[in-house]
Amino acid sequence: MTKIRYSLGVDLGGTSIKIGIVSESGKIKKRLTLETHAEAGPEAVVQQIKKGIHKILKNNDRPIEGIGIGSPGLVTSKKGIVHNPPNFPGWDVLPLGNIIKKEFKTNVFVENDANAAAVGELIFGAGQGFDDYVMITLGTGVGGGIVFNKKLFKGSTGAAGEIGHLKIKSDGIKCKCGGTGCLEAYTGINYLIKIVSERLKNNQSLLNEWVNSGEHNLTPKLIHEAALKGDEFALGIINEVGFNVGSGLSSVVNVLDITNIIIGGGVAGFGKFLFDPLTKTLRENVMATMRERICVKPAKLKNNAGIKGASGLVFYKM
Amino acid sequence: MTKIRYSLGVDLGGTSIKIGIVSESGKIKKRLTLETHAEAGPEAVVQQIKKGIHKILKNNDRPIEGIGIGSPGLVTSKKGIVHNPPNFPGWDVLPLGNIIKKEFKTNVFVENDANAAAVGELIFGAGQGFDDYVMITLGTGVGGGIVFNKKLFKGSTGAAGEIGHLKIKSDGIKCKCGGTGCLEAYTGINYLIKIVSERLKNNQSLLNEWVNSGEHNLTPKLIHEAALKGDEFALGIINEVGFNVGSGLSSVVNVLDITNIIIGGGVAGFGKFLFDPLTKTLRENVMATMRERICVKPAKLKNNAGIKGASGLVFYKM
Repeated sequence: MTKIRYSLGVDLGGTSIKIGIVSESGKIKKRLTLETHAEAGPEAVVQQIKKGIHKILKNNDRPIEGIGIGSPGLVTSKKGIVHNPPNFPGWDVLPLGNIIKKEFKTNVFVENDANAAAVGELIFGAGQGFDDYVMITLGTGVGGGIVFNKKLFKGSTGAAGEIGHLKIKSDGIKCKCGGTGCLEAYTGINYLIKIVSERLKNNQSLLNEWVNSGEHNLTPKLIHEAALKGDEFALGIINEVGFNVGSGLSSVVNVLDITNIIIGGGVAGFGKFLFDPLTKTLRENVMATMRERICVKPAKLKNNAGIKGASGLVFYKM
Repeated sequence: MTKIRYSLGVDLGGTSIKIGIVSESGKIKKRLTLETHAEAGPEAVVQQIKKGIHKILKNNDRPIEGIGIGSPGLVTSKKGIVHNPPNFPGWDVLPLGNIIKKEFKTNVFVENDANAAAVGELIFGAGQGFDDYVMITLGTGVGGGIVFNKKLFKGSTGAAGEIGHLKIKSDGIKCKCGGTGCLEAYTGINYLIKIVSERLKNNQSLLNEWVNSGEHNLTPKLIHEAALKGDEFALGIINEVGFNVGSGLSSVVNVLDITNIIIGGGVAGFGKFLFDPLTKTLRENVMATMRERICVKPAKLKNNAGIKGASGLVFYKM
């Protein structure tokens, strides 16, 4: 009998820490969730991570090859240094990898969460057949990870892949990153909902009915439901998101000559309504020699993508 | 006495072929120019290249380590295959590297001209101190080359670095590449001159006087001269070019985490008027962790940059 390999994945989020033991085929064998306690500072967060890992390892008899951690913020060096994750007050710089390694005496690999998601798709998901691809995650933030020759492309310091902050309108909306016209400022969920709310004031849509009834909040899911019912306004909004993401991705494709795209995150739930205009815009905007090669796929990892991506770091690095 | 190394550089352009024998310190020891005869088809162009190389090698007693060729169009594989260079009718696909290698029995290295320019700066110019940088050439076309870990980053097929075709306004001007809102459609010389001509109709400027006198054509150089005389219109135009290039480059920096930028090409001649707003816009639009590292330099190779870049390919590859 072939021995099955296992690793432990830690998905560090601003609100919760999700931990799982994952097999090399991507099955979660055990999982738990703890509060992050981000507001209590980095010491408290580290204690929560340690507590969670100890708990999940208790009575575990599967051999664990290592621990992978997906973290917000910039992650540098082999020490797994995490720099100033957004929404983690008082953090500054912390060698999270080394701290966890010392506690558990095993291999520890830390990556930015968007990079971990890209690795998750490489090891377990939609990236398995590709040598090169760009992964974009359309959520509250718009993140990205670049895989080239089956390796993460990390740039000079590890911060590469900030696709959410490429500019689609140089004189457009101000983004909270400080820049102007960022893709995230048009398609990040909070920004998108704000734009849609504003436009609903002067447009007819099922969304007005549903939201005004007091029974629904305006969410990407609600917009999708309206689109499924043929609501022109909702269809127009999703079409516009597809155009904006497609235009932004065309810049990435033209600069990197990487033509495989994997799309994840909640906004990817718009499905065909999103993917069709996105792919069309992308094809129209890349160089002629790249056009035929364009291949856009939805991410395969949905629930637990964070845990799987983090645990994938172990199989990827070892 | 240490032996000096030499290589031969071929700068293949749509109108002329420039060939030079270059020392490893970047000195051109001998040079000549021939017509390309692009309109006569690929056979004729190859004959011109061979003729030129034979001519420059006649009575040459310097030991040549190899031949480097910078070519328009996409260049792939070790055979130096050149794909459909723009303005070379009837070309399709040609293994230019192998053809020249067979004729001259020496090492031959072919790269896209923008990549050759980036290598030229690496070997002889402003890139010498950098591990990673993005080179952008602001000319009739807007081209780019990416150097990462002192190597060209070429992407999946060799076409990476098409910085001229990243989008700065997703719903903006149509570009001849087929895309919309490309950086080149705002800053490529022909596009720029067209935009400026149009605006001059409704603006006061020294440029109107000079052009209407019949003694001057509207060129980037003339715009620079007006700016040097304090002409507000000309200053505004250059400022806008700086903003557009800075915004576009911020997308590249955010995606690649490469923060060193080298700027070449005729439009770079705008000097400080260009570099100041460009650098300011770039700093304002990159991620906070990258901001301090931003370093913008003018290209060092000016005249004969094409020959030097091509000859640099030999020292770079061997």
